[in-house]
Amino acid sequence: MTSSAYSNYPPPLSQAQQEYLVTTAKDWAIQNGLAVRPAPSMLPEGSDSNRVLATNAPITLFPSPFPRSCFEEAQALQTVYNQLYAMITCDEEWLGKVIAELIDVDDFVANLWKAHLTVKKEGYTQNLSLGLYRSDYMAHVSSNKAPSLKQVEFNTISSSFGGLSALVRQLHTELLSSPPGNPISYPPHPLLESGVPPENTSVETLAGGLAAAHKAYGYSKSEPSLPLCIIFVVQDGERNVFDQHALSSRLTGFHRIPVFRVPSSKVLDQTSVSESIPARPLTYSPPHAPSSVFEVTTVYMRAFYSPDDHTTSRDWDARVHLERSAAIKCPTILNQLVGCKKVQQVLAEPTGPDHLSKFLAGMDPTTISRLRETFAPQYDLSASGQGRELALNPETALRHVLKPQREGGGNNIYKSEIPAFLKSMPESDWKGWVLMELINPAPDAENVALRNDGEVLRGNVISELGIYGTILWDTTGKILHNDQGGWLLRTKGKEVNEGGVAAGFSSLDSVLLF
Amino acid sequence: MTSSAYSNYPPPLSQAQQEYLVTTAKDWAIQNGLAVRPAPSMLPEGSDSNRVLATNAPITLFPSPFPRSCFEEAQALQTVYNQLYAMITCDEEWLGKVIAELIDVDDFVANLWKAHLTVKKEGYTQNLSLGLYRSDYMAHVSSNKAPSLKQVEFNTISSSFGGLSALVRQLHTELLSSPPGNPISYPPHPLLESGVPPENTSVETLAGGLAAAHKAYGYSKSEPSLPLCIIFVVQDGERNVFDQHALSSRLTGFHRIPVFRVPSSKVLDQTSVSESIPARPLTYSPPHAPSSVFEVTTVYMRAFYSPDDHTTSRDWDARVHLERSAAIKCPTILNQLVGCKKVQQVLAEPTGPDHLSKFLAGMDPTTISRLRETFAPQYDLSASGQGRELALNPETALRHVLKPQREGGGNNIYKSEIPAFLKSMPESDWKGWVLMELINPAPDAENVALRNDGEVLRGNVISELGIYGTILWDTTGKILHNDQGGWLLRTKGKEVNEGGVAAGFSSLDSVLLF
Repeated sequence: MTSSAYSNYPPPLSQAQQEYLVTTAKDWAIQNGLAVRPAPSMLPEGSDSNRVLATNAPITLFPSPFPRSCFEEAQALQTVYNQLYAMITCDEEWLGKVIAELIDVDDFVANLWKAHLTVKKEGYTQNLSLGLYRSDYMAHVSSNKAPSLKQVEFNTISSSFGGLSALVRQLHTELLSSPPGNPISYPPHPLLESGVPPENTSVETLAGGLAAAHKAYGYSKSEPSLPLCIIFVVQDGERNVFDQHALSSRLTGFHRIPVFRVPSSKVLDQTSVSESIPARPLTYSPPHAPSSVFEVTTVYMRAFYSPDDHTTSRDWDARVHLERSAAIKCPTILNQLVGCKKVQQVLAEPTGPDHLSKFLAGMDPTTISRLRETFAPQYDLSASGQGRELALNPETALRHVLKPQREGGGNNIYKSEIPAFLKSMPESDWKGWVLMELINPAPDAENVALRNDGEVLRGNVISELGIYGTILWDTTGKILHNDQGGWLLRTKGKEVNEGGVAAGFSSLDSVLLF
Repeated sequence: MTSSAYSNYPPPLSQAQQEYLVTTAKDWAIQNGLAVRPAPSMLPEGSDSNRVLATNAPITLFPSPFPRSCFEEAQALQTVYNQLYAMITCDEEWLGKVIAELIDVDDFVANLWKAHLTVKKEGYTQNLSLGLYRSDYMAHVSSNKAPSLKQVEFNTISSSFGGLSALVRQLHTELLSSPPGNPISYPPHPLLESGVPPENTSVETLAGGLAAAHKAYGYSKSEPSLPLCIIFVVQDGERNVFDQHALSSRLTGFHRIPVFRVPSSKVLDQTSVSESIPARPLTYSPPHAPSSVFEVTTVYMRAFYSPDDHTTSRDWDARVHLERSAAIKCPTILNQLVGCKKVQQVLAEPTGPDHLSKFLAGMDPTTISRLRETFAPQYDLSASGQGRELALNPETALRHVLKPQREGGGNNIYKSEIPAFLKSMPESDWKGWVLMELINPAPDAENVALRNDGEVLRGNVISELGIYGTILWDTTGKILHNDQGGWLLRTKGKEVNEGGVAAGFSSLDSVLLF
């Protein structure tokens, strides 16, 4: 299938066909937990004061075609990427040099680094780190060549949608094969008859990583010993809660591990560090059962990933409190910092030291060059470098995107807008931005999205593939668990430049490999 | 546990405990499809115009205690009840006499009977009938005696909540045992530590009945032969749709049978009877795939149970259209009529002919008398009978409830209100009502309900146990499939006299046997 084959896909829908798919998808979503809490903007003020309402996650009605070679390459490289990001985390000196360049342009990074130094001064008591990662890619199209896999970003904290993504794959698979024996849910199209989306084990993989950390933590360090648990540190008013519940259900139902949700604002109220015990175990006392106390083996962060979660000194206190405890952090502050776009830029700079061979010492050079192949060229905007010139020249700017180096998405600047944008701020702030060569996705891909307010949109789309991976390692670089499995396809309307499925701008999708 | 033990149950909840249970239950409900579409009254007018929003079904936070002896007796008798209601359906003459008394007081019954006669005149072409039943009971408490099982009503059409009931059982079971190894979701209470609700196979049983009919239908009767399917005839704007989807998912996922939903208003548009074929197969053409045609083996009615679904002559045409087709009806019009409260009253009249032995010929007399034991005395209000006196005497009226004999619930008259109510209508209308001795549930039962708008109510409650059964038989009385399995506990605030969980007045619950 060439790029132009996208233009006949998905097949057109009659009104009755669209109604059938929409009704089926929105009912299926609620029946199976492919849901989100509605945005306040969806409801008149004052309604749903008890927050009981839910709606379908934004989804595509059709799976999207994706090149099999790119999909398989992304899966094949995930454990290598896991290892790379774990090993960078072990090299505090190298990381410190990268971070140093951001200290005076990015308060958030500066404060994270400071929090790390505070804990380091006292001494860490847990030498294990857990990563639950998602590496995001596009299939890059260039003339006369097979599509190639290009990384968009690598997420080291709060990698989301693993819970819901497997459900979208299930919905599309059921639509492709229903009713049994006589599939007619979709109009006929060769691609829709070619098979079903590949297996998606995102829930099993991510929960498996958390379970591996829980097990590796070992016995209770408290005196007397306490029952063990995992906590999910979550945001107040989280709307993407069912994505998280998919992981906790797997942990409790399959792994039989207690899981509690702790809002980031309640960390200091509901957890304690036992100061009298040198290992500093972290204990959790559930407000609904105050006489029960658990010891936390693993802190899974679904908050604290952005500056918005760190608005008060109490938030930073909570962060340091968790970091200095004996619980295994997913991730540690250092591992969160390795997720800076700046790190990705340094790794992906076309000229310069061979960081990959350093961090993946002993790895087969072919594998390392396959990994390098997934990088799109990235540059800083320092006076000495090539990036500044590429960004300011209106012609070369057209081939690039300017990304803020902070976690959490938002505010990418594209193409022709780059030069003026840069000129509007002091040069000293340019260090907070990374210039990346644009990846060219298939220009004529289309799909139909069902938003979470029920509106249906058809049009040109861009899809990003995410591959989930988990790794557990210690500060010496020893790897205890390194796994990959499960994927996410996020599809957005072409006029929309930002991700953020939960915000309704893009849709959860699945893949049909070709 | 004596009745008075109810008074310590459920244990009181601190605010934090209640918050935990409410948050857990409402998230769990959406994650697992224990959901309903919200009532229009929950939302400001004009919002949710695409009907995407959902909320938790109304549920109790705790399972309710229920006497084990009553629960087991109800399960043991279900296949006997199935047989009784099937055999009455086979005796058109007997049924005709009962119906004759209602013809001039109940238009709906009169029209159903007329529809039956229309089809009879032409000749039925399907001799199989399918029943998906629910027999509803209370545990009747009387001084110095063990609680006894008393039937409230027997449903022969659109028996609902089988899909959601199994989920409530699962929710309560998870709360009772979570987190794994250290259950603390509920405050301590001996009853909550005594075990978990019994297995609930309502979905498997009900879908199993439909699958048995589908299989018994045999090969396509069309020329050329067509793929086979089941249709669910549903109401427009159904809010209890996830209850129904639980059954269709089981049919498609496990039994691999195509299922389509046909709104009752679209029956004549989307289905046809092939007049040129003597067997009169019913064909279905999906609007979303108009070139596909299926032959309907089984028509499962989740509409057409009340006069509200039969407001125009076109509705009656649709009804006759389905009835005269070769599809197996669940139920037939005759079987629907056997569900009249009047039939239950005739069976339960304390004096009079032994109908049970007639319909259950060959059945062990002990079983028949156990069945009879589940009847509360019921009377008609004819001039000659005992009922009229019991209803009009203010003292004896206090021990009774006056029920309209129509399907669909609503408008029961209780105790002291009975005499005045009867006197307010012409005596000729009294034939439309049945007087039933009140059943005394445990007076001090309590529970906490989470409504579907998120409001939490605690107070005295009354619980009704429903047992699901399915039976497939032919007009000669031969039984091809007779099964029971799965249950429903519906719990309502004591001040609320009517059922109707979907309307928010009562809650789905589960049982803890004692």
